[in-house]
Amino acid sequence: MNGPIQESTLQEMIEGLRRFGADGRGVTRLAYGPAWCEAQRWLDSRARELGLDCTVDPGGNLYAHPPGLEPAAPVILTGSHLDTVEQGGAYDGAYGAVAGILLAAMGLGSGGIPVVAYVSAEEEGSRFASAFLGARSMLGMAEHADLDSTQDSAGVSWRAALEFARERGCASPVHAGPRPFEPLFRPRMELEAHIEQGPVLEAEQKEIGIVTSIIGFRRVEIRITGEARHAGTTPMAMRKDALVAAAECIWSAEVLAIEHGDPAVATVGRAEARPGAFNVVPGECELRLDARHSDSAVLGTMLSELEKRFRAIAERRGAKLDWKPVSSHAPVAMSADMITEATALAGEMVFSFKKMVSGAGHDSMIFAGQGVPSMMVFAPSHRGISHHPDEFTPMTELWEGVRFCHALLARLARRDAMEGAK
Amino acid sequence: MNGPIQESTLQEMIEGLRRFGADGRGVTRLAYGPAWCEAQRWLDSRARELGLDCTVDPGGNLYAHPPGLEPAAPVILTGSHLDTVEQGGAYDGAYGAVAGILLAAMGLGSGGIPVVAYVSAEEEGSRFASAFLGARSMLGMAEHADLDSTQDSAGVSWRAALEFARERGCASPVHAGPRPFEPLFRPRMELEAHIEQGPVLEAEQKEIGIVTSIIGFRRVEIRITGEARHAGTTPMAMRKDALVAAAECIWSAEVLAIEHGDPAVATVGRAEARPGAFNVVPGECELRLDARHSDSAVLGTMLSELEKRFRAIAERRGAKLDWKPVSSHAPVAMSADMITEATALAGEMVFSFKKMVSGAGHDSMIFAGQGVPSMMVFAPSHRGISHHPDEFTPMTELWEGVRFCHALLARLARRDAMEGAK
Repeated sequence: MNGPIQESTLQEMIEGLRRFGADGRGVTRLAYGPAWCEAQRWLDSRARELGLDCTVDPGGNLYAHPPGLEPAAPVILTGSHLDTVEQGGAYDGAYGAVAGILLAAMGLGSGGIPVVAYVSAEEEGSRFASAFLGARSMLGMAEHADLDSTQDSAGVSWRAALEFARERGCASPVHAGPRPFEPLFRPRMELEAHIEQGPVLEAEQKEIGIVTSIIGFRRVEIRITGEARHAGTTPMAMRKDALVAAAECIWSAEVLAIEHGDPAVATVGRAEARPGAFNVVPGECELRLDARHSDSAVLGTMLSELEKRFRAIAERRGAKLDWKPVSSHAPVAMSADMITEATALAGEMVFSFKKMVSGAGHDSMIFAGQGVPSMMVFAPSHRGISHHPDEFTPMTELWEGVRFCHALLARLARRDAMEGAK
Repeated sequence: MNGPIQESTLQEMIEGLRRFGADGRGVTRLAYGPAWCEAQRWLDSRARELGLDCTVDPGGNLYAHPPGLEPAAPVILTGSHLDTVEQGGAYDGAYGAVAGILLAAMGLGSGGIPVVAYVSAEEEGSRFASAFLGARSMLGMAEHADLDSTQDSAGVSWRAALEFARERGCASPVHAGPRPFEPLFRPRMELEAHIEQGPVLEAEQKEIGIVTSIIGFRRVEIRITGEARHAGTTPMAMRKDALVAAAECIWSAEVLAIEHGDPAVATVGRAEARPGAFNVVPGECELRLDARHSDSAVLGTMLSELEKRFRAIAERRGAKLDWKPVSSHAPVAMSADMITEATALAGEMVFSFKKMVSGAGHDSMIFAGQGVPSMMVFAPSHRGISHHPDEFTPMTELWEGVRFCHALLARLARRDAMEGAK
């Protein structure tokens, strides 16, 4: 690859990356699989062509960094993930991964803190039910036991999947000692470029999003039990219809989220009424509820209020309600200093921007959770479509994001150096 | 069998019949199957022990009648069906079928019009998607083409199923001429005893229900198409959530039926939101709607109003709505004369009774539709449970129903004879 890094470089690498995927619509690149391995090797060779050196770690994460970098040296980490959901798009993860390599190759000039790109494994949790395996291993957070207990739907362990990747040069051997993973560099901060995966930036005609926090979520499985009865012979007043009770709950969840205002969201993603026939009043209905907020206390309030409302609906209808929390993640704040610098920079660069909450989880969440100052920059997502073959962002908008990130890294590095000098 | 026909006779035959069924919970006796054939042969032998003669017709319907009955003679038909739904109960159909045989055996005294019991095939439509095959064939309503086009889920045709039954003595050969089925007797009227399959008689502490009409139904498959989006990144105001739209529709169907008052019912028996994950706003939801009323015009109004409300909900939410009517049956009035006599009789016999609409379809509907004066007598259903192993009615209550039917047939026969003499 010749010439300066520019929009066409970004385009060539994102278009190149989308070719690596399983058959079918969109891009399916499950972590550690054959297509994923090929994609990682291709990125490795591209990064080398841009003058970088590459290293893989035992978790299958790729680092592209200036040649001769001391492992113990403090660095700025920037990147995103290589894996996709099934039949996903060409931008989710890929954008930040490619942007990271370009930013590392552009560097911050001689004497500046090195910029190291990371291309992480299994952020989505599409192959292994456990998301963020890559980022967690990058930060030394995974145990030997996890390597065997974490299995995909076919029963293949994380250990075996890593061995498959290692045979293809996509991972280094796990450490034999007490900790299978150790951080490879000392990140002073972390920056992740990503598509928004929502409709807000496009709708509000903003060029970039400065992410102030990553939303927390709570997930609950709910079962409403009424009485299955003949749909013809059971008068309306004598029914305990589990689906109508569920319908009231579904609607009330929407109302509650609207009452709380952005960034509160509440979604019932699944409803299954049984037995499911035309002529039987449903006796049972299962719901999957996902509620999110950037403020942990507000999220807690939302959940208790949802449970209270759901229970009141079921009780009024003579139905039984089981409320089973199944997973949760606390909200994570992005670095206040980085947000301040990013906001000031966007003003100086005359970027139209929005300070916003990320409604989805990202690798940055894991870094921030381990105390690494972290931030994300969002590019708009056309019509908010993501995790779908139609996922799209115009290349110009993606390139603006890279330009912004480069200026931001330079500014942050200067500040970091000044503070170090104090 | 010796001695007079009494409650223990009814009990013995209903308990006897429940033994004939496929393995599994409850009673599974699908039309023309092995268990069904054995059950029919057992009823045949029981009826003969009660002094009756038995005849099967080409549709697999069994008639138990006084010996030496002229086929062309006018008769009173009374009975019900032998088949059950899968994992059904011991009373649905069985009650009226056994009651019919007892009523035929009890007779109406010398010189009265003969009472002929019928035990019909495939009323439920559990084996063949087409319900009332037995009653329809009894009335000569089925064609040769139906014999081949009507198939069960395994691809076995009605013709082949009848052949299986015929080999076991459970059907006579279909007629070779232009019409495969011809009525075997000339029914002056038809009476069907049945369990209510609903909770009303028990709740209102009535001993019997006098059915004034059989409800009509209209069934619609509805598809709501919104936009599948990320549940975390899509603000509430920017969603087109197909499931929340569906929830509003489900609730509004309940509200509409309540507004119309009994006997109006509206049921969404099935709801399926896609893709069905925690973290995706549902982009599509399918519903199955069943609405019923005893008045055809009111039913029509209900359906247009339901469609109007559903469409308004979808439109307000920016979703698309497909409304696909899939089946319907017009309401059928029971014989006004029979209702008058039954009401007067119940008063005289000091029976607590309720004139009511049947919310489910029954063989009587087919007879009435062909111009045969028809009526049904309901016995209470404990907790309204039917089509379920827990289906139950105390034997005493079932026997009261038989006593009432016997008195009613005698009264109707006297009236019929008087009118004939006029």
